[in-house]
Amino acid sequence: MTTILAVEVHDVRFPTSDSADGSDAINRGDYSATYVELRTDSPHVGAGFTFTNGRGNEITVAAVKALSRHVDGKTLEEIFAAPVAFWRSLSADAQLRWLGPEKGVIHMATGALVNAVWDLRAKVEGKPLWRLLAEMPTAELVAAIDFHHITDAITPDEAAAILDKGRTGLDERLAEISRDGFPSYTTSVGWLGYPDEKVRALSRAAFAEGWRAVKMKVGGPIEDDVRRARIIREEVGPQTRLMMDANQVWDVDEAIENMARLAEFDPYWIEEPTHADDVLGHARIQRAVAPIRVATGEVAANRVIFKQLLQAEAIGVMQIDACRVGGVNEVLAEIVMAAKFGVPICPHAGGVGLCEYVQHLAIFDYLRVSTSLDGRMVEYVDHLHEHFVDPVRTVSGKYVLPEQPGYSAQMKPESVADYSFPDGPIWSARLADGVDA
Amino acid sequence: MTTILAVEVHDVRFPTSDSADGSDAINRGDYSATYVELRTDSPHVGAGFTFTNGRGNEITVAAVKALSRHVDGKTLEEIFAAPVAFWRSLSADAQLRWLGPEKGVIHMATGALVNAVWDLRAKVEGKPLWRLLAEMPTAELVAAIDFHHITDAITPDEAAAILDKGRTGLDERLAEISRDGFPSYTTSVGWLGYPDEKVRALSRAAFAEGWRAVKMKVGGPIEDDVRRARIIREEVGPQTRLMMDANQVWDVDEAIENMARLAEFDPYWIEEPTHADDVLGHARIQRAVAPIRVATGEVAANRVIFKQLLQAEAIGVMQIDACRVGGVNEVLAEIVMAAKFGVPICPHAGGVGLCEYVQHLAIFDYLRVSTSLDGRMVEYVDHLHEHFVDPVRTVSGKYVLPEQPGYSAQMKPESVADYSFPDGPIWSARLADGVDA
Repeated sequence: MTTILAVEVHDVRFPTSDSADGSDAINRGDYSATYVELRTDSPHVGAGFTFTNGRGNEITVAAVKALSRHVDGKTLEEIFAAPVAFWRSLSADAQLRWLGPEKGVIHMATGALVNAVWDLRAKVEGKPLWRLLAEMPTAELVAAIDFHHITDAITPDEAAAILDKGRTGLDERLAEISRDGFPSYTTSVGWLGYPDEKVRALSRAAFAEGWRAVKMKVGGPIEDDVRRARIIREEVGPQTRLMMDANQVWDVDEAIENMARLAEFDPYWIEEPTHADDVLGHARIQRAVAPIRVATGEVAANRVIFKQLLQAEAIGVMQIDACRVGGVNEVLAEIVMAAKFGVPICPHAGGVGLCEYVQHLAIFDYLRVSTSLDGRMVEYVDHLHEHFVDPVRTVSGKYVLPEQPGYSAQMKPESVADYSFPDGPIWSARLADGVDA
Repeated sequence: MTTILAVEVHDVRFPTSDSADGSDAINRGDYSATYVELRTDSPHVGAGFTFTNGRGNEITVAAVKALSRHVDGKTLEEIFAAPVAFWRSLSADAQLRWLGPEKGVIHMATGALVNAVWDLRAKVEGKPLWRLLAEMPTAELVAAIDFHHITDAITPDEAAAILDKGRTGLDERLAEISRDGFPSYTTSVGWLGYPDEKVRALSRAAFAEGWRAVKMKVGGPIEDDVRRARIIREEVGPQTRLMMDANQVWDVDEAIENMARLAEFDPYWIEEPTHADDVLGHARIQRAVAPIRVATGEVAANRVIFKQLLQAEAIGVMQIDACRVGGVNEVLAEIVMAAKFGVPICPHAGGVGLCEYVQHLAIFDYLRVSTSLDGRMVEYVDHLHEHFVDPVRTVSGKYVLPEQPGYSAQMKPESVADYSFPDGPIWSARLADGVDA
């Protein structure tokens, strides 16, 4: 038995807005984490977090505190004996559900707590999360998924059939990615806030380092987007996949018009071409811009939005996120739905800690669910990995499989202490200097 | 000039969960408000709030505090000189937007602040909000709407044409509803937590009081729903409109099956038959259950969700809410979209203060936008009105037009003090008694 004795929550913020790292058409912030540690009666700590963009991290911290009553004092065994009941205790709390439902602050807080529980379990079993999931009996995986509101897209039996089939050839697939790494792409070449010469230098460097898939931000004035796309395409050559990301700034018709302009640079996908809630809009854009793929997901609120994106044939790439939705349980629902609809998953990463998280999800998806690498890539951004106990590693544009037990979510204690807001030493000094935060 | 000198936020909770008032298939809570007062250099106070369900009200309070920087110190004149820029300073804050975007906690907090600004303006001009809006020049109304992400459904020119046309006959319509009141229905007869005999007695009393439209909760075991529907139909007779509300508990196919069972009681609409985010699911249900109308909106996150519900012909009734979305500005967008698509608006109310708010929106919609009462009704629940300075009044199942200046959102100071959580006298005593809150 492993009993959760306390739920600790930390407001951790990294002052990234100083450098325009992470700037895009919508967001410019300080990459932050609402960071949770579950203290237990075992030597293990369950670590999880949700990612935020700076200001407002105290709001998700408050939400984690409100939800903690459903985690504090529980045993790992009782949680996993009835995993959907546990998940619903968080996502469908009779009073807190109103604050979403299943979206935004309250759902992100659910994700932080649920992920911490899975990290704890993986550590107790001595396995990285991807291995825990890949080796899990089909019935146990299915029992961890809440099919409420998605049975019109996938039933438990259909999910079980997909997961059973995924056992075949698993060892060969594991040997392959253990040897070769997991495909990846980099987003560090073209943030909107970077000047042209920085974009050119970063594109050249990325190509030299072995990256054959890169992503740029679009959504500024269209002439600027065209000019920057030309620079990047010149540097990475015609064979490299060039993805574009508008971060929701366009209206539907505007997205269609602008992609007609940008098509000459052979984009592999257009990401977040319009408002994240606009399923019908994405479907119209996908029909208009094909064969360019529409990709979205980093702010898709929950499995019901993903369900509709698949049903409407609105996306050619599904970008799951590890902590926007309600943690591992809900991501499992999304992964099996993508498999049923035949849409490749390329997880959203970047921010702080998202690469650490999502590598596990992509590896599990390949090993046990989709069983294909065709079109699969994990986003990679080279920021802030140094703050994690088990940081991601990449070689020649590929992720190296994580081997430490857990979900790679644990931060170094000194990073948590140094970057705690507002009282850690970094922020105390910044706030004393009059920084706006 | 009217300058906002301070933004005060209060966590106000009413212990309604004791009595099963407000209980439904999903929610059972303590009706609460994140209550805002804008202190100014004038005699007027701008009052606004967002409604929550008890626990977690401290989270929306934290969100209001985070957003207050965009309101504090502003003048009413500069806000209304550039209303969309002001609205986006809240809804698209470069760091806080990530926490939605435009949904859940952060958007509800935006609604509280934006509504307080409109309440202040209406008070300064000495008019109830409905009159301020109904008399406003078309150009000014259009300028208050953020058309971002909805131009594929309605353009500023189309909105202007609707609002111009709505000037014709306005005086006659106003005379009519001043004399007759505004149509309404009551939800107080059939909460899920009420025993059968209470349902029967309340139904009988509602009919005797003049109500000819009543709503019951469904979504429990279907045999219970059938039995309760039969009781209510027996008491209110065949001519009274009977609405049903499932509060999202059903899956899509389950909704279709259950409505086939309940059709014998001639429901006027089925409200929230499935997950609020499921536009495609609502469209399937609407096609299957017609001529019964599908109604939804109380947790529709924003104008982009409403846009899609209209585009997909997923609803026959649109239930706008005053504070789920980003306040008056966003509701204006929703009202003009509903008019363009020809779908009647029946606002969501109940909770605490929602009746006070939405009467203004429905009256404006009739006077200036839809110009029709056909199928229009405002929800009415007889809870908690005594805490407001200008409470709603009903006569024979109709709302009496509010005449005091403002948005009817201001609470009595003694109510705010008495029900403040956790330190007011009501909650101090309850918490000392060991109540779970």
